[in-house]
Amino acid sequence: MTRRRAVAGWGFAGEEASPAEVDRLTRLVAVRFPDADLGVRPAVAWQDAPVAPPRITPPPALEGYCTSDREARLLHARGRSYTDVVALRRGDFGAAPDVVATPRDATEVAAVLDWCADAGIACVPFGGGTSVVGGVTPPAGERPVVTLSTRGLRRVVEVDAVSRAARVQAGATGPEVEDGLRRHGFTLRFFPQSFELSTLGGWIATRAAGHYATGPTGIDDLVESVTAVTPTGLWSSRRLPRSGAGPSPDRLLLGSEGILGVVTEAWVRVLPRPQYRAAAAVSFPDFGAGAAAVRAVAHSGLTPANCRLLDPTEALLNGAGDGTGAVLLLGFESARAPVDAELHDAMALCRDHGGAGEVPGDKGSGGADGGNTAQRWRRAFLRAPYLRDALVGLGVLTETFETAVTWDRFAELHSAVIRATAQALAAVCGDGVVTCRLTHAYPDGAAPYFTVVAPARRGAEAQQWAAVKRAAGDAILDAGGTITHHHAVGRDHRAWYDRQRPEPFARALAAAKAAVDPRDVLNPGVLLGG
Amino acid sequence: MTRRRAVAGWGFAGEEASPAEVDRLTRLVAVRFPDADLGVRPAVAWQDAPVAPPRITPPPALEGYCTSDREARLLHARGRSYTDVVALRRGDFGAAPDVVATPRDATEVAAVLDWCADAGIACVPFGGGTSVVGGVTPPAGERPVVTLSTRGLRRVVEVDAVSRAARVQAGATGPEVEDGLRRHGFTLRFFPQSFELSTLGGWIATRAAGHYATGPTGIDDLVESVTAVTPTGLWSSRRLPRSGAGPSPDRLLLGSEGILGVVTEAWVRVLPRPQYRAAAAVSFPDFGAGAAAVRAVAHSGLTPANCRLLDPTEALLNGAGDGTGAVLLLGFESARAPVDAELHDAMALCRDHGGAGEVPGDKGSGGADGGNTAQRWRRAFLRAPYLRDALVGLGVLTETFETAVTWDRFAELHSAVIRATAQALAAVCGDGVVTCRLTHAYPDGAAPYFTVVAPARRGAEAQQWAAVKRAAGDAILDAGGTITHHHAVGRDHRAWYDRQRPEPFARALAAAKAAVDPRDVLNPGVLLGG
Repeated sequence: MTRRRAVAGWGFAGEEASPAEVDRLTRLVAVRFPDADLGVRPAVAWQDAPVAPPRITPPPALEGYCTSDREARLLHARGRSYTDVVALRRGDFGAAPDVVATPRDATEVAAVLDWCADAGIACVPFGGGTSVVGGVTPPAGERPVVTLSTRGLRRVVEVDAVSRAARVQAGATGPEVEDGLRRHGFTLRFFPQSFELSTLGGWIATRAAGHYATGPTGIDDLVESVTAVTPTGLWSSRRLPRSGAGPSPDRLLLGSEGILGVVTEAWVRVLPRPQYRAAAAVSFPDFGAGAAAVRAVAHSGLTPANCRLLDPTEALLNGAGDGTGAVLLLGFESARAPVDAELHDAMALCRDHGGAGEVPGDKGSGGADGGNTAQRWRRAFLRAPYLRDALVGLGVLTETFETAVTWDRFAELHSAVIRATAQALAAVCGDGVVTCRLTHAYPDGAAPYFTVVAPARRGAEAQQWAAVKRAAGDAILDAGGTITHHHAVGRDHRAWYDRQRPEPFARALAAAKAAVDPRDVLNPGVLLGG
Repeated sequence: MTRRRAVAGWGFAGEEASPAEVDRLTRLVAVRFPDADLGVRPAVAWQDAPVAPPRITPPPALEGYCTSDREARLLHARGRSYTDVVALRRGDFGAAPDVVATPRDATEVAAVLDWCADAGIACVPFGGGTSVVGGVTPPAGERPVVTLSTRGLRRVVEVDAVSRAARVQAGATGPEVEDGLRRHGFTLRFFPQSFELSTLGGWIATRAAGHYATGPTGIDDLVESVTAVTPTGLWSSRRLPRSGAGPSPDRLLLGSEGILGVVTEAWVRVLPRPQYRAAAAVSFPDFGAGAAAVRAVAHSGLTPANCRLLDPTEALLNGAGDGTGAVLLLGFESARAPVDAELHDAMALCRDHGGAGEVPGDKGSGGADGGNTAQRWRRAFLRAPYLRDALVGLGVLTETFETAVTWDRFAELHSAVIRATAQALAAVCGDGVVTCRLTHAYPDGAAPYFTVVAPARRGAEAQQWAAVKRAAGDAILDAGGTITHHHAVGRDHRAWYDRQRPEPFARALAAAKAAVDPRDVLNPGVLLGG
């Protein structure tokens, strides 16, 4: 049975934070912000939210997979950023699309794009709708909008076990991909926090990254070929393990955020499911020492599945530490052989950098137990956005900023972002906490992930958020980071993206867009244009 | 002291095949082609070759780094493909550039492009000039041509040991890159067969691959950021370990073959120099069994530095076998720890697939000895193109075709290409040998590399070559391969490239080109256009 999506919050209906969870969060926040005006304000029911009547009617040929049903329009009206959730709770669905189209094959996708081009309609491609950067928000204004859901395309079509690759439709969610592969003994091994909701096509369009810390962290390297429908024809690359023939067509679609075409399917590289696991936690006197250890591990050639460094506050909040030091969560996994030796080698590197920790129950293969720990961790990881929604309801401003930076600039970026964000929080919220973890480690750098928690002023959340976001984004760019390691650009990161990208590349991309989408049908205003 | 380049052949002057080497080659070829008209015909001295007078004169401001010197023009008149060498030996330098510019910084590069744009001149970027696909050939016709050599930019500018990255100018050759890194204990670990001559900028422009069999085989993954001068401004990306902000600007330059901009420098990821090595040779009853073993190794998660499968004839010619079976050359290396266990694991997989072989002197670390073997192999590898030139002089048609294909189509592609090429050789040369090796192994496929040796008909080499090339290229495309795994497109692969790339991508690339190079200054006719 398909679970229903929550219309006005993260994830699935009925899975929002329980009263016990809300209670626990309230107490936790109250300790840190004793003067905050906490307490759940009831959300406006989506049934009561105002929505403008649709301005367009699909041509008869498209009626079978188009709808202007109120719930469908509201479900596709926004992504799930902090400001989206604030607005949704108020019954503010913004500019809901006039029509939601859910084509079932590439021909129907092309028909939707043709209709949009002919009728001057904008088209917003939509996978799981989990964007936290305004990537699926319909453009406001006079132009009607069709949101094109890829959820009519959700099958694992074929598995090539010889080449370890699978052809998967773009609308398949994480569980749908994994269910389709599991019966063949394979996994895509790609687990973003939105895993249960987001789709392969969305991952490709946004250059998403999964939670694995090293190795092929991004979807980019897992893609063997991509098929997309553009407003002017099918863009389908050859399945190849590698090619030297001109610039990679796939790499131009990867990260294109729906402005060049609607990804309809891809061949992806799959792996046998891991059989061996080993994990441990290592304490460090401070975040800097932990980061030096992460760098040593990344330089060693070891490729831990998990290498997540929590600063003292994050360690405390995650139950991994007492708040006095940083904690590194290390985990290895393999389908081929035990990984205890790798874990020991990594632990030795950590000890060289002042880390303290033992392999739990240090007695050979961590096998099943390591698997349970990993599964527990993943469940908590997937649960976090539901708790974020609960915090919003309590009147807490909560947001995450993520980036990547080379190691030589890491310490400076870390302190600059913490400082700038804390100052902004003090100025606009009167108080606030900024924490950091390292989520991904590369030989040449790392991805720091910042979390902000502060008392919000009811009704002023969007302005407060904007001030904090501006401070963090500016600090990230000034310190040499990217405006996003894996959350994409969307509408929220546009100003920094424009600063970050090489200017001739911006012109090249705009020209490429005009060549394949001459009527600017696809996601206008994202990455390019007004 | 700088070695002088050979004006009319591969590599450096004075390093062409010795009389003893030519003798050995002659005997080898005569055994297989007893009726062939072998024997060295003297080449026309480049000093006697005709060349049209230059049609343009550089503006005074550019005189310091521009020349119309005859030797310079001839040195930049052609790449080093089989047909180039045939023509060069005849004194046919084709359309030599009118001027060779060797700018010493990005400002001077921009000045050259400005001049070309203003004066209607075509500009061909030129690194080591080792293209085997016509990638640096000046376009014939009325339009004057400036060849822009990047050899005025050849320094390792800085090394960031903390991030393990280096800023290197685009004109640095392999040895110049490695010399600059060695004093810091690092290596780029990138060794194409043209290593001694080709340049970082050329590798980036052509998406080159080195000789390592697995892991990051291509330059693509070693690039952290790229700076290029376009006719309309500087294209310079941020140094980042990973980014999710829009499509990768670097990936659009990678493989762009000089049509978008002149790469002037890049930050590349570097590694500590390997300390541990282990190598072995494994025999297989046939090529198919060996390929199955290569696939098993690629699937295992092991990442051998060398995993080169030679078919029976190649094994014989390389002194690695007796011609009755295929031979797999396996090698591992690491900067961190001994790799004997990895070699043993790979050997076990090979035995599972019918392989027979022992680790030489199986007694712990292969350290220094493995290093010597690897160095010997690399010397022979770098020497091969000089021997190719000698074969051309003997009247032998010799060419290589390379591709990559997913494993599910590998066997079919292999036999189809062998069949089609052998048929073409029989038709146009009356005889000929086609051999194959696997040079690169990926979890989802492999890169087969075909070598052709046949008796040429003096004076008809270009037509013979074209017929054989057409048969091989068609067979590769029809069997699902790429027209090139690492030799690039140039002018020779253009027809197949046009078939291979997605049509909307071709339009996107043409539009991107027009946006950054509106007067079509850069490498006209390569990848796009006339």
